[in-house]
Amino acid sequence: MSFRNKLARASEENRSLLCVGLDPDPAQLGGRDVAAFLRDIVEATSDLVCAYKPNLAFYEQLGEEGYAALRAVLRAIPDHIPTIGDAKRGDVTNTAEAYARALFDQLGFDAATVNPYLGGDAVAPFVERADRGVLIVCRTSNPGAVDLQDLTVATEAGGRPLYQAVAGLARQWDRHGNVGLVVGATYPDEMRALRALCPEMPFLVPGIGPQTGELARSVQAGLDARGGGLIINASRAVLYASDGADYAEAARSAAQRLRDEIEQHRLAVQASR
Amino acid sequence: MSFRNKLARASEENRSLLCVGLDPDPAQLGGRDVAAFLRDIVEATSDLVCAYKPNLAFYEQLGEEGYAALRAVLRAIPDHIPTIGDAKRGDVTNTAEAYARALFDQLGFDAATVNPYLGGDAVAPFVERADRGVLIVCRTSNPGAVDLQDLTVATEAGGRPLYQAVAGLARQWDRHGNVGLVVGATYPDEMRALRALCPEMPFLVPGIGPQTGELARSVQAGLDARGGGLIINASRAVLYASDGADYAEAARSAAQRLRDEIEQHRLAVQASR
Repeated sequence: MSFRNKLARASEENRSLLCVGLDPDPAQLGGRDVAAFLRDIVEATSDLVCAYKPNLAFYEQLGEEGYAALRAVLRAIPDHIPTIGDAKRGDVTNTAEAYARALFDQLGFDAATVNPYLGGDAVAPFVERADRGVLIVCRTSNPGAVDLQDLTVATEAGGRPLYQAVAGLARQWDRHGNVGLVVGATYPDEMRALRALCPEMPFLVPGIGPQTGELARSVQAGLDARGGGLIINASRAVLYASDGADYAEAARSAAQRLRDEIEQHRLAVQASR
Repeated sequence: MSFRNKLARASEENRSLLCVGLDPDPAQLGGRDVAAFLRDIVEATSDLVCAYKPNLAFYEQLGEEGYAALRAVLRAIPDHIPTIGDAKRGDVTNTAEAYARALFDQLGFDAATVNPYLGGDAVAPFVERADRGVLIVCRTSNPGAVDLQDLTVATEAGGRPLYQAVAGLARQWDRHGNVGLVVGATYPDEMRALRALCPEMPFLVPGIGPQTGELARSVQAGLDARGGGLIINASRAVLYASDGADYAEAARSAAQRLRDEIEQHRLAVQASR
């Protein structure tokens, strides 16, 4: 089954646009075993999410132990929940082919995030895997995003921010209907512009803070015409909801609150249309 | 010792601007053990190079075996030869911190390549490691490089290609004198413009083809005022110089030819100044 279909089914079954980011931070684990902790989180939340998103950096910092933990958490995720390898790789074609093999074949991710800076031939080895999802890093949620992504570039359609040019390229690159964008939650105006440019694409939305109102604005700005198209990621707010022995229970409560809040905003947007 | 000093010493001792890219391709190894093959390559070439550059994609595609091979090859590289982790990572600050730990602490690289698309705060965790080198991906050697890197962006200094804006940012980010650029060999005009913008920075130059004249043009365009500042990478031309039992010997001959050819161009440029 393709990433798109798997995502749609999990999202419908769990009535959820919530993705949980599985990013182990040893400083927050109080000596707990990384793999066991993450398995507990998955077990506590797998009926509440549309996807899981391990960010590879947090495993790579742990060396061999991290690699084993990544394998263990991927085994623990139920088959019907899609996995997104958040790796943001980008390299020339033959190297990108090796990265695609690493993420899709060695680790078995259903989708991966990819950096666009090296251009179309660097993204192609991912896009050619039509059954997998390719989420192009477009407009991120960090302050430094403005340094490159907001620069005004000259295009055939006139001057526009680089991130919008990237969205245009992503559309060109999307020969198999498996491409989406990474769009940070903290910039709803940017998300609205990108939804207008790419009405059909799934957006992976990191950077949700639980009490800042970003969630409502992101859903309003990013929901597609069919009331979907968003993969809203929370990592720390779920994983470290409690640092006590009740961490799994607390993670479930936090995920449920976020899932329900997103669903509420989603229904409000749909009712207003 | 800092990356810059280690690089300068190795370069002087071996009279070499040649970097060998240690990128294992199972299809070319004829069933040989990856780690043993790479150790043989290092042993055969370590008096001819200024640095070694493993590209992590080629290890990651091999899973656990690849990780073990990367550890083995890093152990096999003599301490006085600097190592460049070609990973082209780029992510938001706390994730970039994890990547910096993975590359500099877990794996012990002296330098790493970094993708600039997420901006200054994403690059900062690398740059803050003042003893390590940070090579910002600026203008790559693949055809798709034009898609983003050559777009004309509006800056305070007027319109210029994005890759030149990135070079300007790299200068701003370089608070500790440990930043350099990745500049493909196939675009000597672009390299000349970048050398004018960044007279003091080391340039990592991938994409050398042995018989295309790129080597001469790259040295002419990229050499700094002191006759250095280039790290010229060859991977396949050295590693797979022979597919027979004489692969190590053949790798040594290929590396020696490249080292000597670069040195000849270098002396010609210096004589003409």
